[in-house]
Amino acid sequence: MESFADRLIQAIEQKSTPCVVGLDPRVNEMPQFIVSSVQKRFGSGLEAAAECIIDYHRRILDLVAPLIPAVKPQIAFFEQFGLPGMKAFEKTLQMAKERNLLVIADVKRNDIASTAQAYANAYLGQTDCFGKKYPVFNVDCVTVSPYMGHDSLLPFVSTCNEYGKGIFILVKTSNPSTKDFQDQTTGSASRLYEKVADQVNHYAKESIGKHGFSSIGAVVGATYPEEACALRERMPYSIFLVPGYGTQGGTPETCANCFHPNGLGAVINASRSTTYQFEDLSLTESEFEAIILERVLTMKNNINQALEVRKNVGKILPT
Amino acid sequence: MESFADRLIQAIEQKSTPCVVGLDPRVNEMPQFIVSSVQKRFGSGLEAAAECIIDYHRRILDLVAPLIPAVKPQIAFFEQFGLPGMKAFEKTLQMAKERNLLVIADVKRNDIASTAQAYANAYLGQTDCFGKKYPVFNVDCVTVSPYMGHDSLLPFVSTCNEYGKGIFILVKTSNPSTKDFQDQTTGSASRLYEKVADQVNHYAKESIGKHGFSSIGAVVGATYPEEACALRERMPYSIFLVPGYGTQGGTPETCANCFHPNGLGAVINASRSTTYQFEDLSLTESEFEAIILERVLTMKNNINQALEVRKNVGKILPT
Repeated sequence: MESFADRLIQAIEQKSTPCVVGLDPRVNEMPQFIVSSVQKRFGSGLEAAAECIIDYHRRILDLVAPLIPAVKPQIAFFEQFGLPGMKAFEKTLQMAKERNLLVIADVKRNDIASTAQAYANAYLGQTDCFGKKYPVFNVDCVTVSPYMGHDSLLPFVSTCNEYGKGIFILVKTSNPSTKDFQDQTTGSASRLYEKVADQVNHYAKESIGKHGFSSIGAVVGATYPEEACALRERMPYSIFLVPGYGTQGGTPETCANCFHPNGLGAVINASRSTTYQFEDLSLTESEFEAIILERVLTMKNNINQALEVRKNVGKILPT
Repeated sequence: MESFADRLIQAIEQKSTPCVVGLDPRVNEMPQFIVSSVQKRFGSGLEAAAECIIDYHRRILDLVAPLIPAVKPQIAFFEQFGLPGMKAFEKTLQMAKERNLLVIADVKRNDIASTAQAYANAYLGQTDCFGKKYPVFNVDCVTVSPYMGHDSLLPFVSTCNEYGKGIFILVKTSNPSTKDFQDQTTGSASRLYEKVADQVNHYAKESIGKHGFSSIGAVVGATYPEEACALRERMPYSIFLVPGYGTQGGTPETCANCFHPNGLGAVINASRSTTYQFEDLSLTESEFEAIILERVLTMKNNINQALEVRKNVGKILPT
């Protein structure tokens, strides 16, 4: 069975980009031509929102599938629409798989051991129902929160190994408040996020695929380039999932520090800045398609240029 | 609007107990008389599992509703059954509300600000769908993970204040691996979980209800009594949600340290040890009912006795 890391690296090389597109459905920010067509059939409640999400994601996926290796649906934006939202989540996963995109479900789950196993079953493994096992949401990879420690992470790690799936453990996230807890200096003089990084590396070095990477990765924000440089060396085998590009302030240059000098080792996610933030929601279908394509292609170009600099010049730190 | 803390304290006083029952559905450990009846109608896949969960929870809720103030469904055990599981989750919430039980959804969610708001909308507030707001899962309270810091917690805190809901922020959880990160000594000489406790207290003291408690509470495991004593003083206004009683090794005595001397300030959860772990799954319906009732009544008695000791003798630490 091929590991998640190997499948991801192959997809990155095939599409010539480490860029992934986030799917964070915001029904109030979708173009009118999509919303009004759905509302005619489904009204304007949670069911209509779910239908908008499905229609929107089908369009986005059709556009981006030839261009990128993976998509990252953020489950919170589906959960807030209740059961219809979860139906749209499942349909989004299915549409992404049909288009040969890898799916990184951004769920940030964590709990004590037996409960963590239930989450791992839900997203990565299979659930035992009266003695027979069923895959459930069955994505390629999820994000996991580390606060509860090793015994809460291990069920995810072993499920990854069993089913060829991956996880990205939150290490240094992209938001300003990482100073509150993640940046705290611990007794051993390393910061909390560095201790988490060491735990990630402990898992990662046990399962290195044929491309030199493990399926046990780390979330490292695009907004902290100096920390990213140090973490890159601290977790050499882990692929980084890098949020914070675009709307949150990460740039191609800050992202480049999350890669090894050979240009591998990270995926860069952009959500809102790629799939929302239209100047005018009354744009036409062809205008919408042109904008999405232009944004994804621009992001790919910009990241690849920064990776060339990273390759030739070394780290790119803010001056 | 009455706060979650006030509603919870009233329910605790009305039922004369701080005990709550966890709903962590395990279909392979349910009595045969329930499973075989459901399987005749629904087969044995994920849909059948969901029907078992609904039937099982209806029975449990009928039995425990007169006895306890709240139930704590653990969402991971529903998510692992996919969309049918989430339907069973929604139905479980609805059945608990119909029986006037408060619902603490154990979801341990957390993310950056706008995503945290989506989670807060899903469980505590309302979701804006094309300009109109809809309550979604609409429980009384959720558990929240703190790793990402203040800006990831604030959307939950403000949604609690707006809608009269509550949160329990993970501080010192009940599992062995809390030593990995939560127990790390930070630069200011306090441990990480104590820094999280100070953040909880910062929120809690801004919103104290008429019973002297805030709706911003903390998860403090029954398995660490000395730490619980110190945390009780560090977060005087926060109600503690105490996991780890029963199967994980927490006792009435260790739990008692999570309360103020007056016997208020915590809710004690038991899941598996109350609602599963039958010696023989071929027990009859009346045997099943007798076991559940006996377990809940025994737990209530044991906790209330320990609280009497706590009241009269002070802290109960292991010798």
